[in-house]
Amino acid sequence: MIIVMRQDASREAAEDVAKRVEALGLKPNLIFGEERTVVAVIGDDRRKDREKFESCEGVDKVLTILAEYKIASLETKPEPTVIRTQNLVIGGGNFGVIAGPCSVESEEQILASARAVKAAGATGLRGGAFKPRTSPYSFQGMKEDGLKLLAAAREETGLAIVTEVMTPHHVDLVASYADVMQIGARNMQNYHLLQAVGECDKPVMLKRGASATMDEFLLAAEYILDQG
Amino acid sequence: MIIVMRQDASREAAEDVAKRVEALGLKPNLIFGEERTVVAVIGDDRRKDREKFESCEGVDKVLTILAEYKIASLETKPEPTVIRTQNLVIGGGNFGVIAGPCSVESEEQILASARAVKAAGATGLRGGAFKPRTSPYSFQGMKEDGLKLLAAAREETGLAIVTEVMTPHHVDLVASYADVMQIGARNMQNYHLLQAVGECDKPVMLKRGASATMDEFLLAAEYILDQG
Amino acid sequence: MIIVMRQDASREAAEDVAKRVEALGLKPNLIFGEERTVVAVIGDDRRKDREKFESCEGVDKVLTILAEYKIASLETKPEPTVIRTQNLVIGGGNFGVIAGPCSVESEEQILASARAVKAAGATGLRGGAFKPRTSPYSFQGMKEDGLKLLAAAREETGLAIVTEVMTPHHVDLVASYADVMQIGARNMQNYHLLQAVGECDKPVMLKRGASATMDEFLLAAEYILDQG
Amino acid sequence: MIIVMRQDASREAAEDVAKRVEALGLKPNLIFGEERTVVAVIGDDRRKDREKFESCEGVDKVLTILAEYKIASLETKPEPTVIRTQNLVIGGGNFGVIAGPCSVESEEQILASARAVKAAGATGLRGGAFKPRTSPYSFQGMKEDGLKLLAAAREETGLAIVTEVMTPHHVDLVASYADVMQIGARNMQNYHLLQAVGECDKPVMLKRGASATMDEFLLAAEYILDQG
Repeated sequence: MIIVMRQDASREAAEDVAKRVEALGLKPNLIFGEERTVVAVIGDDRRKDREKFESCEGVDKVLTILAEYKIASLETKPEPTVIRTQNLVIGGGNFGVIAGPCSVESEEQILASARAVKAAGATGLRGGAFKPRTSPYSFQGMKEDGLKLLAAAREETGLAIVTEVMTPHHVDLVASYADVMQIGARNMQNYHLLQAVGECDKPVMLKRGASATMDEFLLAAEYILDQG
Repeated sequence: MIIVMRQDASREAAEDVAKRVEALGLKPNLIFGEERTVVAVIGDDRRKDREKFESCEGVDKVLTILAEYKIASLETKPEPTVIRTQNLVIGGGNFGVIAGPCSVESEEQILASARAVKAAGATGLRGGAFKPRTSPYSFQGMKEDGLKLLAAAREETGLAIVTEVMTPHHVDLVASYADVMQIGARNMQNYHLLQAVGECDKPVMLKRGASATMDEFLLAAEYILDQG
Repeated sequence: MIIVMRQDASREAAEDVAKRVEALGLKPNLIFGEERTVVAVIGDDRRKDREKFESCEGVDKVLTILAEYKIASLETKPEPTVIRTQNLVIGGGNFGVIAGPCSVESEEQILASARAVKAAGATGLRGGAFKPRTSPYSFQGMKEDGLKLLAAAREETGLAIVTEVMTPHHVDLVASYADVMQIGARNMQNYHLLQAVGECDKPVMLKRGASATMDEFLLAAEYILDQG
Repeated sequence: MIIVMRQDASREAAEDVAKRVEALGLKPNLIFGEERTVVAVIGDDRRKDREKFESCEGVDKVLTILAEYKIASLETKPEPTVIRTQNLVIGGGNFGVIAGPCSVESEEQILASARAVKAAGATGLRGGAFKPRTSPYSFQGMKEDGLKLLAAAREETGLAIVTEVMTPHHVDLVASYADVMQIGARNMQNYHLLQAVGECDKPVMLKRGASATMDEFLLAAEYILDQG
């Protein structure tokens, strides 16, 4: 990482920062520029060391050379991840198509949808049993009854079931029916939920939140991956 | 509400919609415009009837005359709500100032902050014990230890404690220390959390999510209020 | 349109609004609901009448039944528009592919790009001669020299040239070289520019502004179309 | 600036970059980290050198130590800028209040507004003569007639006139009546307009575009300031 000193920071302040860097067992590299002094640090842990320096005296900001997400980075694991569940295969050159209605509404509706989805060549079925709705008065989904209907649709068609989980308390319930756990856009930064789905052994489909940056998105994925 | 028929909808389709309206015990009012036919409905429940008509044959869209939020509406409760907790009074002409650090970091830090906040004339102390952090590797807060330090700061200063709760599972814990439950911007549409804080007997401070509309914000408040 | 009266508006206020509606030669339809009175108006011009009522006494808001964009609406012109220029055909079942570099940088670069684009089967070549850059110190494009190189690339390949125009003053210049005038996302609400490109006789490619709604986007298109 | 090499870049690639840095008369500083090699550059021009290295072989990205805006930076001009025009004084501890209606609608309306604004203690009068409207069918402002009414209001009250200019072609006209040129939020990245107002000798009030970052905002200001 690169620790950038303030324009008005003294030489002593920069040297103090360098000493702190050494005290952590890392190697500092002091560079005196025309307008600013920077301390380039070698050997730091991308995940933890940044915060230690941001509030040091004379420090303006800390730039990271490496991305903050590590497990989610292609640099850590360059080979593509392949997800296989039921007839759905995604990644490593495999292109999986998941289709289905917004919500599970009835047995008739979801079975007809599943047959149409399968006939069209897709291998995953989506459909909400728990629905995040802007208004508390809108239909909130069929809940566990909806999950059972999804399982029945899988039974008949072999399609993998992709369905949303909205709160940590429901993770076990949803995981007992679903093949892929969906995290909706509004929950992309619901960190306890991310950790809870990270602990279950099902693959997770994470949607990008409206107006989230790529870094925020990859760090949300890192929350899931960090649970192992 | 106003049910707007599609441009190509037949007169029969509009009359069918009107019959459905009557079947619900409501009064339809058919209006044949130059380009569109609309069915104005009298006596509908703003909270539930809209969805019944959106998917009817020939219907283009349903406009609501009344806002979808009811409890959160000034029309339902025109008199201002006054929140009183510790020395903090908000609403009805009372202006409360809440101040404090981003996170609780140590006893020394939070007590010094609380004294400064009180000396400056504020009546509420904020400080995060559970922190929503973009990266899983950033400091996540002192958790229950942080809550205890906040309670100690209240003990000494009489300031009301405002602190964030991030997941339904922590609502009871946070409520046992806090005077006001804070819902952060990233959790504005974490509906299970909204319901969980709505069930506890503490006032709630709801932050508007980045780029959320006023309607989304008021409906999020409605989730909390709907729990009573 | 539907004129919604305030909850506390008197019956007289609603009747006054109805009289104003009649004075414009339109037909009012007074509906007394349980919580609100509304005046449904028949025969209004979607484009002009709304503003006349929004500030009348006792009026809360005006809902429009018809979209505010008229020329851009499929209801006004249901048959698909087909754009034909050079070898590029778009619309009515024709799918045109436009490809090319961010900026025109040199003769060698744009000719090599054009050949690759053509070889890959596309029929339009994009490339910026005028570049909207966040920083005034970044490369701003080759300007007219870039336009000349684009024309040379068209000469050789038959590809249609799609390039951005950033200010009304450049419309004639860009139109003398380009086949399609591009309006970039940052200029989606630069209304004088929209009007200026609407006056030239070249097709326009309008990009949606970051976080613009569909209504804002279609009304921006209406600005262009309204020039004829 | 800090040039960050790709993880798989060779030592030779980094040395080539260092040679290019020297060829520009700048001083390179090669640092071999555990995962990445970086070239720290001393003496570069924040405004121009970055782009030269972003597309070099083996380069991943270029981090800038200094902000890209120079004239708009407090580091370049630490003393506060004070704007004085008519009775309006802003900056350097002076707090100016500008008030007024959305649009100039009539002589009566703007004079009554101006008197009320002055009576309330403000020293600037705002009011749109050219209005950026989402719909081409909405009222677009009184144009030059509106500017004349604003000038009449200044004549009577001594208030400084703040009014929006929407296109470069109108800059001279608006500047002949206004004391402060306003750039609206939708035009924050209308770069030719920014340059045009930068050339006139009136102070400019730049509004931040919806969802623009601080860097984008300051670089937009830099466009204006760069005209001198």
